[in-house]
Amino acid sequence: MPDSSALDRFYSVIPAGGIGSRLWPLSRADAPKFLHDLTGSGQTLLRDTWDRLAPLSGDQRIMVVTGRAHRAAVEAQLPELADPNVVLESEPKESTAAIGLAAAILQKREPGVIIGSFAADHVIKSAPLFHQAVREAVVAADAGYIVTIGIQPAEPAIAFGYIKCSRPLQIDGAPNALSVGSFVEKPNLATAKRYLANGHYLWNAGMFIARADRLLEEIAASEPELHAGLLELADAWDTPARGAVVDQVWPRLKKIAIDYSVAEPVAAKGKLAVIPGQFDWDDVGDFASIAKLHSGGRKRDLAILGEGARVLADSSSGIVVSHTGRMIALVGVQDIVVVDTPDALLVTTSANAQKVKSVVDALKLSGSSDVL
Amino acid sequence: MPDSSALDRFYSVIPAGGIGSRLWPLSRADAPKFLHDLTGSGQTLLRDTWDRLAPLSGDQRIMVVTGRAHRAAVEAQLPELADPNVVLESEPKESTAAIGLAAAILQKREPGVIIGSFAADHVIKSAPLFHQAVREAVVAADAGYIVTIGIQPAEPAIAFGYIKCSRPLQIDGAPNALSVGSFVEKPNLATAKRYLANGHYLWNAGMFIARADRLLEEIAASEPELHAGLLELADAWDTPARGAVVDQVWPRLKKIAIDYSVAEPVAAKGKLAVIPGQFDWDDVGDFASIAKLHSGGRKRDLAILGEGARVLADSSSGIVVSHTGRMIALVGVQDIVVVDTPDALLVTTSANAQKVKSVVDALKLSGSSDVL
Repeated sequence: MPDSSALDRFYSVIPAGGIGSRLWPLSRADAPKFLHDLTGSGQTLLRDTWDRLAPLSGDQRIMVVTGRAHRAAVEAQLPELADPNVVLESEPKESTAAIGLAAAILQKREPGVIIGSFAADHVIKSAPLFHQAVREAVVAADAGYIVTIGIQPAEPAIAFGYIKCSRPLQIDGAPNALSVGSFVEKPNLATAKRYLANGHYLWNAGMFIARADRLLEEIAASEPELHAGLLELADAWDTPARGAVVDQVWPRLKKIAIDYSVAEPVAAKGKLAVIPGQFDWDDVGDFASIAKLHSGGRKRDLAILGEGARVLADSSSGIVVSHTGRMIALVGVQDIVVVDTPDALLVTTSANAQKVKSVVDALKLSGSSDVL
Repeated sequence: MPDSSALDRFYSVIPAGGIGSRLWPLSRADAPKFLHDLTGSGQTLLRDTWDRLAPLSGDQRIMVVTGRAHRAAVEAQLPELADPNVVLESEPKESTAAIGLAAAILQKREPGVIIGSFAADHVIKSAPLFHQAVREAVVAADAGYIVTIGIQPAEPAIAFGYIKCSRPLQIDGAPNALSVGSFVEKPNLATAKRYLANGHYLWNAGMFIARADRLLEEIAASEPELHAGLLELADAWDTPARGAVVDQVWPRLKKIAIDYSVAEPVAAKGKLAVIPGQFDWDDVGDFASIAKLHSGGRKRDLAILGEGARVLADSSSGIVVSHTGRMIALVGVQDIVVVDTPDALLVTTSANAQKVKSVVDALKLSGSSDVL
C-alpha cells in the first residue's frame, strides 16, 4: 500500500533547458519550446507542467533548472515559484549536470529527499493517471531503486527511445513496478514494429524518480569528476560563495545525458525500475507530432495554431502555425508544415519534420543568428 | 517581298487589363501582373512589351488601353507614352471592347491604319524573330485578313488554346501566312499530345493584327450593338464630349473576348490568317510557368524571385517568390510554390498552380478584400 511518508519527502524538478530546434522558427534561443502553447490549452507547456506537478509535491516543492537568459520568462510563467527553487545555468550542460545539481542542492537542504525530474516541454493528457504512476514511482524510489516511468506505445514510433521491461519487482505500494532490462535508442520502423508487437517495450519519456542520495551515488559511480563538481556547487549554493564557485566549476562540468550516466549502467546492475504509464504522452518534438496532437490522428485534417490565424485551405492537410496574422492560402498541399513568424517562414512536410534541426544548424553556419 | 508602306501604317496596341489572379498574392488589384518583373529582366512585363514594340511602330505609335486605377503606374513605366495614346477604361469590358475601341479611335484619326494588339504581360525571348513575324502579319493584314501569330508548341501544354492551321495563303510579302482552320479551347493532356504530334496546331498567343476598318467590320458582323457603341465612343473621343459619352456608353458594352467575337467567326469564313512564330513565348499565367521560365525546364531546380530574398533550401525544388526579406526555409518539398508578401502567403505546388484563381474567388466571397 502507498507509503505516504515517502510522498511527503517528494520534490519535483523541472529542467527547462532545450530550445527545441526541430520546432524552429517557432522555438528560438529567446523563446524555447517550453514557453509556447503547443496544445491549444491557452498556456505554455512549462505552465502545464507546473500545474500537473503542483498537486503531487505542492507549490513550495518544485525546483526549476533553467538558463540565465530565461529567468524572467520562467518567473513570469510561474509566479508561485519560490526563489530558492530557481537554479540558473550559466551555460547548458545536459541533463546529468542539471538534475544532478538539483539533487545535490536538495539533498544538502533536506537529507532523504526523493526527487522526480520531468521535462518542461512534454504533453500529458490525463493528470490523474500520471499522478498514480508517480506515486508508485516514489514508493519504488524510496526502496532504493532509480525509477523511470515508461509509456505504453500507441504506435511504432521511431522518434522515441524504448525501455525493455523485465520481471515484476513486487514492491509493497508499487504493484506495477518492473525491473528494466535495458534502454534502447530510437529504432528504425521495422524494429519499432517488433517492439510494439512484443509488448515488453515502453517509450522512454525521460522521467526519472529517485532518492537524491541514490542518484548522486550512481553519478559518482559512473562520472566521479562530474559528481565531485556537483557536490562542490551544492556546498556553496546556499552561501555567499555561490557565484564564485559556479563561475569556476560549472564551465568544467562534463556534458552527458542522464540516460548514459545513470539509466543504462543502473539497468545493467538490475537496479532500474519502471512504472508503466497508462496516460497519453508526447514529447511534441517536431511539427508532425504537433499536427498529430491536434488532428487526433486523422490524416486528412489541417491543424491551425496561432491567435488570429487567417488560413484559407483548398484540398490541403497538415499543420499551419501562424504568428503574423497574415492571410495564408494553401492549395493542394498534403501533410504540409507551414510555420509563419514575423522574421522567418518554414515550409516542409510531416515526413521531413525531424530534419528541421538541420535548418537551424545551417543557419548557425551561415551566420544568420538574427533568426535563431 | 515586304510592303514597307503597310508597316508605315502600323500602330501597336497594348491592352493592359488583367490582374493575373493565378499569380496571387503577387498580383493584386492595385499591382496587376503587367506591373511585375517575372523574368528577372530588371523591368516590368509592361516595359518589356513596350521595348519589344517600339522598334516596330515607333514610340509615338503605341497605344495603351488600361484601367483608370492603373494610369499613374502605367505612365511611370512608360514615360514616352504620348497622352493621346492613353485609353482609360472606367471598368473592365474584356478584349473586344478594349481592342475595338483602340481600332475605332485610331481609324477615325488615321483611316487605313493597321493595328496589332499584344498583351502587356507575356514573355517573348527573341525580339528579332517576333519582329519578323509581326512584319509578315502586317502585310497579310493589309491584304484584308484578320491575322494572328501562333506559336510553335514546345510541349503538350494544357494551359493554352490552340490554332489549327490549314493551307498556305501565298500572300506576297507574307510567305509563311497560313489559313486558320479553327480556334480550339485549352485541351486535356491526351488531346494536347495529339496536337503536338499532328504538327498543324499552334499555341494561341492572343496576338491580333488587322486593318482597323476590317476589324471593326468583323465586330459589326458578329456584335452590331457593341460595334455601334465603339463608334459612338470614337466619334466623341477627341472632343470635349468624351467624358459624358464614356459615362453613358462604356458601362453598357457587352463583355466578350475577341476570340469569340472575331477570331472564331472569321476563321469559319476562311478569312483568318496565321503567321507561325518561331520565337519562345509564354503567357506566364501561373507560378508553374514562372518556375519553368527560370529553371530552363530543369525539374530539380529551385527558382528564387525577389530582391533581397533569403532562402535556405534543403532537398527542395519549385519556386519561391520573396517580397518580404524574411528568412524562408524549405525542407524536403518538391515542385513547391511559395509566395511570400507582407500581408499574404501562398503555399501550393506546380501541379496546382492553375487553381490559385480559386483562392482569389474564395477570398472575394469571404470578404477578405484587404489582401486582393
